[in-house]
Amino acid sequence: MTGEPRIGDVFGELLRDALAVATGIGPRPLAGGRLPRPVIEIIERDDGLVNGAPAAQYLDGPQDWQPHDHRAVDRVRGATLDIGVGAGRIALLLQERGTPVTGLDVSPGALQVCRRRGVRELVNGTVDEHAASGRRYDTFLLLGNNLGLVEGRERASTFLAALAAMARPGAQLIAQGTNPYGTRDPVHTGYHEQNRQRGRLGGQLRLRLRYRELGTPWFDYLVCSPTELAELVCGSGWQLTDVDDHDAPYYLATLRLAG
Amino acid sequence: MTGEPRIGDVFGELLRDALAVATGIGPRPLAGGRLPRPVIEIIERDDGLVNGAPAAQYLDGPQDWQPHDHRAVDRVRGATLDIGVGAGRIALLLQERGTPVTGLDVSPGALQVCRRRGVRELVNGTVDEHAASGRRYDTFLLLGNNLGLVEGRERASTFLAALAAMARPGAQLIAQGTNPYGTRDPVHTGYHEQNRQRGRLGGQLRLRLRYRELGTPWFDYLVCSPTELAELVCGSGWQLTDVDDHDAPYYLATLRLAG
Repeated sequence: MTGEPRIGDVFGELLRDALAVATGIGPRPLAGGRLPRPVIEIIERDDGLVNGAPAAQYLDGPQDWQPHDHRAVDRVRGATLDIGVGAGRIALLLQERGTPVTGLDVSPGALQVCRRRGVRELVNGTVDEHAASGRRYDTFLLLGNNLGLVEGRERASTFLAALAAMARPGAQLIAQGTNPYGTRDPVHTGYHEQNRQRGRLGGQLRLRLRYRELGTPWFDYLVCSPTELAELVCGSGWQLTDVDDHDAPYYLATLRLAG
Repeated sequence: MTGEPRIGDVFGELLRDALAVATGIGPRPLAGGRLPRPVIEIIERDDGLVNGAPAAQYLDGPQDWQPHDHRAVDRVRGATLDIGVGAGRIALLLQERGTPVTGLDVSPGALQVCRRRGVRELVNGTVDEHAASGRRYDTFLLLGNNLGLVEGRERASTFLAALAAMARPGAQLIAQGTNPYGTRDPVHTGYHEQNRQRGRLGGQLRLRLRYRELGTPWFDYLVCSPTELAELVCGSGWQLTDVDDHDAPYYLATLRLAG
């Protein structure tokens, strides 16, 4: 045996178990077949760094959110696409407020969890796949650090083009990112430096997620500064019109399609 | 980059950070350089299974213990060796009760944490190394699932011989184990079956621990039934005199040196 995980819907299984723990409904992970085991997302980076994050946060109600999440949803207007909808925490609040919102996710299990929690409009797929549907939106959301889905320089232009293809006139993109460059931890600063030497953005993380016996393939996830984001956006047709960094190192970037 | 961790004192670093989080003293792991990050022990099994466990439990005071931990310490008498002392939760209570207790651990970082928390008698090393010291004990403790340190059939006899070499007349060994065979989860039952096909005990886990950039080498950790334990003990000079399984699947095994 090699210690390698089986490829599967890591995020979906994780959220399903987190929902079972939160609601007490359905099979839950047990230690020794008896005691409840906390549901923890394992995030591996390709330099060997590993972190565990309790999955319960994906189910958090607005009272437990970070302040920038509230400021983000207050900026929403019109038909909204919640990209990487996860367990639907943002979509559920928008629905309550009467905003027409569609949740998009590549994880079938995440969409099942969303459906059970009451999210009505859900689509399985990537932004590229969804762009072929002909649907149009006024607001695109990349919350919960989902600016990371921009991946890096190469993916950024096709990703932003897919959103532009789905955009109504005057559409906005609200993305939450994290500026990675405030740390002095050599585990991170060394990683950033190695990335740059390979022609990547410093915070262009190469990650995989693991949960129990499942893993994702390795993928790129971008953690960039607002300055780097401004460069990535250049020439895309989108303009970076506002950066709210009141909760630095976290920030909300607002982009608009150039008229 | 390969995603492989650097070999290091995983357990020590984990406990040091857990203590820093619990006390608010010293550098703590932060997300984005700002928000406290929960300290989570990552346990990988060689079939690709991974679990995360919050490290705070190693610091738990008696009020948060499992009932069998209390029953175990109530059986202690005389000079006691706490094998795999960890963050010292058991040793601290014994000290308070006036029991002469020595904490043994292979992790230098764990011993530092013990020392900061007030454990007075500490030794760095394995049971084999400590057996050379000439120290003698009336009680040996393997709590917190530390029966696992018996590893498997091969290691069991040398492990038990090392304890016998340190035993005063009438000495006892109190070990906490978990019976792994109550589960129907195919991830576990399939692993047990594969183990048996390779001539190993079903619950002879091949594990490594990871925390941030550090990992341990792969090691065997035994999760066995009381029946399997009885077989392992046979011919060692120790006798399995009592099994308390009131908190099944967890159990306390008491062994005594044959007179």
